[in-house]
Amino acid sequence: MALVIGKPHKRADGLEKVTGAMKYTEDLRLAGMLYARLLTSPYPRARIAEVPRAAALAVPGVVAVVTADDLAGIGQARRELANGRTAYTGQPVAVVVAASEAAAADGVEALRAAARFEPLPAVLTIDEALAPGAPLVQEVVEFEEGDAQAHATVEVHAQHAETPGNVTNRVTFARGDVAAGLAQAEVVVRRTYTTARVHQGYLEPHATVATVDPVTGEVTIYTATQGQFYVRRETAKILGLPEAQVRVVPMHVGGGFGGKILLHQPLVAALALLLRRPVRLVLTRMEDFLTTTPAPATVIDLELGARRDGTLVALRGRVLMDAGARPGAPLATGGILLGGYYRVPHLAIECLEVLTNKPPVGAYRAPAAPQATFAIESAMDELARHLGIDPVALRLKNASRPGDPMPNGRPWAPMGLREVLEVLDAHPLRHRPKAPGEGVGVAVGGWLGGIESASACVRANTDGTFEVVVGAVDITGTLTTMGLIVAEVLGLPPERVRVRTADTSQAPYAGMSGGSKITYTVGTAVRLAAEDARRQILQIAARHLEARVEDLELRDGRVVVKGTPAAAVSLAEIAAMSMRFGAQYAPVFGVGNTVVTRQSPGFAGHLVRLQVDRETGEVRITDYVVVQDVGRALNPPAVEGQMLGGVAQGIGWGLRERMVYDPGGGLLTATFADYPLPRATDIPRVETVIVEVPSDDGPFGAKGVGEPPVVAGGAALANALADAVGVRLHTLPVTSRMLAAVVAQALPAGLRSPEPNRTP
Amino acid sequence: MALVIGKPHKRADGLEKVTGAMKYTEDLRLAGMLYARLLTSPYPRARIAEVPRAAALAVPGVVAVVTADDLAGIGQARRELANGRTAYTGQPVAVVVAASEAAAADGVEALRAAARFEPLPAVLTIDEALAPGAPLVQEVVEFEEGDAQAHATVEVHAQHAETPGNVTNRVTFARGDVAAGLAQAEVVVRRTYTTARVHQGYLEPHATVATVDPVTGEVTIYTATQGQFYVRRETAKILGLPEAQVRVVPMHVGGGFGGKILLHQPLVAALALLLRRPVRLVLTRMEDFLTTTPAPATVIDLELGARRDGTLVALRGRVLMDAGARPGAPLATGGILLGGYYRVPHLAIECLEVLTNKPPVGAYRAPAAPQATFAIESAMDELARHLGIDPVALRLKNASRPGDPMPNGRPWAPMGLREVLEVLDAHPLRHRPKAPGEGVGVAVGGWLGGIESASACVRANTDGTFEVVVGAVDITGTLTTMGLIVAEVLGLPPERVRVRTADTSQAPYAGMSGGSKITYTVGTAVRLAAEDARRQILQIAARHLEARVEDLELRDGRVVVKGTPAAAVSLAEIAAMSMRFGAQYAPVFGVGNTVVTRQSPGFAGHLVRLQVDRETGEVRITDYVVVQDVGRALNPPAVEGQMLGGVAQGIGWGLRERMVYDPGGGLLTATFADYPLPRATDIPRVETVIVEVPSDDGPFGAKGVGEPPVVAGGAALANALADAVGVRLHTLPVTSRMLAAVVAQALPAGLRSPEPNRTP
Repeated sequence: MALVIGKPHKRADGLEKVTGAMKYTEDLRLAGMLYARLLTSPYPRARIAEVPRAAALAVPGVVAVVTADDLAGIGQARRELANGRTAYTGQPVAVVVAASEAAAADGVEALRAAARFEPLPAVLTIDEALAPGAPLVQEVVEFEEGDAQAHATVEVHAQHAETPGNVTNRVTFARGDVAAGLAQAEVVVRRTYTTARVHQGYLEPHATVATVDPVTGEVTIYTATQGQFYVRRETAKILGLPEAQVRVVPMHVGGGFGGKILLHQPLVAALALLLRRPVRLVLTRMEDFLTTTPAPATVIDLELGARRDGTLVALRGRVLMDAGARPGAPLATGGILLGGYYRVPHLAIECLEVLTNKPPVGAYRAPAAPQATFAIESAMDELARHLGIDPVALRLKNASRPGDPMPNGRPWAPMGLREVLEVLDAHPLRHRPKAPGEGVGVAVGGWLGGIESASACVRANTDGTFEVVVGAVDITGTLTTMGLIVAEVLGLPPERVRVRTADTSQAPYAGMSGGSKITYTVGTAVRLAAEDARRQILQIAARHLEARVEDLELRDGRVVVKGTPAAAVSLAEIAAMSMRFGAQYAPVFGVGNTVVTRQSPGFAGHLVRLQVDRETGEVRITDYVVVQDVGRALNPPAVEGQMLGGVAQGIGWGLRERMVYDPGGGLLTATFADYPLPRATDIPRVETVIVEVPSDDGPFGAKGVGEPPVVAGGAALANALADAVGVRLHTLPVTSRMLAAVVAQALPAGLRSPEPNRTP
Repeated sequence: MALVIGKPHKRADGLEKVTGAMKYTEDLRLAGMLYARLLTSPYPRARIAEVPRAAALAVPGVVAVVTADDLAGIGQARRELANGRTAYTGQPVAVVVAASEAAAADGVEALRAAARFEPLPAVLTIDEALAPGAPLVQEVVEFEEGDAQAHATVEVHAQHAETPGNVTNRVTFARGDVAAGLAQAEVVVRRTYTTARVHQGYLEPHATVATVDPVTGEVTIYTATQGQFYVRRETAKILGLPEAQVRVVPMHVGGGFGGKILLHQPLVAALALLLRRPVRLVLTRMEDFLTTTPAPATVIDLELGARRDGTLVALRGRVLMDAGARPGAPLATGGILLGGYYRVPHLAIECLEVLTNKPPVGAYRAPAAPQATFAIESAMDELARHLGIDPVALRLKNASRPGDPMPNGRPWAPMGLREVLEVLDAHPLRHRPKAPGEGVGVAVGGWLGGIESASACVRANTDGTFEVVVGAVDITGTLTTMGLIVAEVLGLPPERVRVRTADTSQAPYAGMSGGSKITYTVGTAVRLAAEDARRQILQIAARHLEARVEDLELRDGRVVVKGTPAAAVSLAEIAAMSMRFGAQYAPVFGVGNTVVTRQSPGFAGHLVRLQVDRETGEVRITDYVVVQDVGRALNPPAVEGQMLGGVAQGIGWGLRERMVYDPGGGLLTATFADYPLPRATDIPRVETVIVEVPSDDGPFGAKGVGEPPVVAGGAALANALADAVGVRLHTLPVTSRMLAAVVAQALPAGLRSPEPNRTP
């Protein structure tokens, strides 16, 4: 019987966050610190004709103007600034460094006014990029592992393009004979689904401070990142330094969602090396929108063939991802999820990465999953409606089961897709009568789950409190959960356990906080470390009490001889005995050193009821149920918080968010006034239903929780909207304006269904 | 064959130190930081009549005046300031806290001018303290483990005084029948030896900055300390907080020598808690001399009886230590060393701690050892001269051997006393002819060696560099040595290993850097951690290379299949494979968790030739040889550095240093102008001879190195001076003025030999 886990616990850092007391990177002030601001490209593609640094240097307080050439002596750092040409609006071209933020801003303005760019033809959309004779976004494409790739672990054969072009990567999956399968199908849904470029919308802009030890040359980087070790590795590589010379201090992250991994850290570190002064770069909101790495827009062609009884027979898909100006889109994950949720004997999926002259894309919570899920879950819904089958029943009939092959041929791990669907199936909300303009939608979606190696330490203090040291950054309350794991293993109240994230020079290794894997992998290391500490405690107690380890039990902070409660020793006494001058015992210092090599996919289902105002197109969500298999909810409020956050961001995907570029490549939505993040008033009351299908690998059966609940939100909303207005749109987001146009039958041609369902 | 250890390596932090680039506590500037200065007692014993805080608060910039009463709400913190009465000149009475150092200083001056103290009768010397009816230094004596006690591990039965008095502790050792033994002796040396109160003389004054998290209440203490975990434990206790709420960040120590352990840290932390602002306290040089914890002055009565052939038969000793105003003098160590170097069948030693109205004493490099060694080594020298036996031969004849009982009955561990004496015996310098006024002296002395538990981590970076994390502060180059240990085990060049001291919230446990035990105990943990990492590396390599672990060898940063050099994998590849997204191996993260429970005593011998100017008494040291058994010299220059430093400080003990108090209890030597630390020009060229009698427990056979070389320096100088001027003084230091008086036969009575040797 669990003592601690599974019960509600407050988040350890909650009070600091809600009171505004928490310190972020922007709050850092180092002695002698300089302030950097970026001169960015005003054109999506241009030749840099002139950057007359004198213009900025004339501004009082400006210390330096740095261009790519100035960084030539520092490893590969020159690549951090545009060199000769620019590839997207917002690309950093030069840095103005000054004694104050204001002077740096003035310097950038002066430089911007004086700089000359010669615009070149650019491609801004997938269509433009694929057109014959289109300008090349990159003349020579360099392939690197992108941030988004590091979220999902999938084995695929990706083909890099061999000839220059804007299609830079291609991933294919196939089984059976898809042409024959589609020919056999009695009904085929054939649609093209599009999704917008969407931003992670964190509240804290990107922020980095770097400093260099004047003697040792060691670089210390204070930064809001989800992946301190990743930042260290990449920065060391770019600067040409050994990793031990680069120390990354992970600051509190004011929202990340995949968007805070690696961005300007190597540049800021290079500036500190160049100028031998601490340098800070904190983006403005507009710079953040212009230069950071959002989720890719996609165009997905899907043909889904079935028998009249609803049995799927064939799926053909083509996924185009707009990667922006640099390869790195999460192609494989998109393809696997598109074709993986349901059993389909004949399958062919092609995923293509297309470069455009826009900022490179990156990871956003469950990269590729909302887009692919929107496509397959819209198609399933349309199929159900066409066949007159209940949409949940159709999904249950076809749902993949553990052991079924995924599109890449690997078997599905144990998972709760079916269990989640069963909860949705039984939920009364689905069957309540509907008013006019009211719609009900469901959708389900999953996440394969990241795997990674991790170490962790659990150390006793001499007063019987414990400290846990990990290398993972807390973005979702994971440190609180680590503390619960240790409290559970040691039989202690959680207040006696404190969890710390150490910097890269001291922390046990952990992967980045992304891919829904921190509790799953680092939590496992923490559990092992706590068990190691427990073993050490019992061994010391056995010697001290002259008893056998098997006869001892640990409870309420004491080791007791079973059946002889008077024979006991407290954890404080044990710790003090093991850590003092002249000690006779080694310190209680538990270590977990582990690798989790099996995924535990997580699934979440969404059930939404909403009301569309037929005149304004305004949407009012009246009821929302989110159901998630989390393996085991170690701290239920933390899990529910993730589910609620997933719903909120799903509403962004479904109804509101898109980054809009003008024909000249300028971003029209570069402030929160223009980029419509869901506000608190847009979020309905949400019912959360936790399903627990235990993982074999995660601690106490836990699975990754962070990503699954965002996956199917947009799809569920689209399905509910189709139900509400009787017309289905195949694009996300569906805005009120579009809905009003649908109702008025004034929809632009491109948004109409291109053809009816084919019934051969 | 060792690849790395035993060869000369530069100290990792050397360049930072010699260029002045290293940052110390005083260099810290926290936002909103306040500056504290102390109002100290102007009398050795007084009633605090009035501390009118308005006087200080009227000074612009002064924020608060804090007295003991103000700290009443914070655990036991009120005890950090004098309450009602003072017990020594320099005792902190109140703290003025201000927005600047200057305002705080002005505030203290204003307060000092306004404060009223009523002087009370005080005792300043051992004699005064022991006089019948003497005022009591402490009415109620509280016994705590003192810093100095934590340096040496000795098992003794100490008796706390049961009735009020100025003698607060008594330790006795006895074997045989000392009265009978002395009666049987054919010659008895009976002398009273005195040594002065001596300061550690570090260059950086005590410095602490404390800050409190406004929400969590966590206290962070930045401080120059040799014992971060000790500071945490004691501060947490005094503040009434769990240890996990107190974080001690160990700053670089600008000289410690035992004097930088725990002092004002609880007070500064309490101020930060009270005022909710960061608070800094950096002592001035004068405050440092007035309020810190020097080595005790001693009075040692010794009777040493021998046969005419030089065989010792009896030793009776009485050691009085002037502890200042608080118990905690290193009685037991003094007694054990006094009676332990030589075999004596009949022995009785009584050690008494005497309180006086002076600052409490603390640890100074080899606490009690220079004092006790001065006594026994002077007596041995006088005995040798009297019996016409070579002084080294006399020592060799009587030297204790491993297994012989120490005064406390425990057997001597394996040690190199004899080997050190043999080197001295053979050294040609002893037998060179002497000019008039020239003298030659030898002495030997040892240190029992601290033992403690320790943990350490050795972690791979993904580029094949390694980082070592320890909890011990580096005061003598130990971190460099840890790196060598890891490089040796992993077969790597030392540049690829970096060693870090983490703070108490993240570090593996280590004891304080004192007692000559860091390389001995933490080095052992580091070696085990490196071996653990090596094992993990070989296991990964075996799987990767499809080979058996036994067939692999690690060299030059690669794992190679023996006999098949082409089959190899680099450490960088192994590290990268074990620390990445989707890894199949656990991270390379080695841990050493250990306790060393056996001491490895270290001995050093000094051989000095010097010339005394018979008019001025000025001493010129012409030749100096120091011989030390270090077990195994892991980094010979670091070992030699310790030996040279020991010689320098020994010259301070022997010829220069003493804290002088005026009859009113005021310190006359409170600046470096008045307190005569040896200067560079006072230090001769020194020949260092390393002896290696391996320890069974230390890493690669190493023993503690720090303390032994200071122990016998003063005694050797005293013996050389006696040889040079033909008259022996029984006090340290022997100043030029005293020597001139000796030569002029104008020595004050108290410094003359009280009686000739008794020859029964």
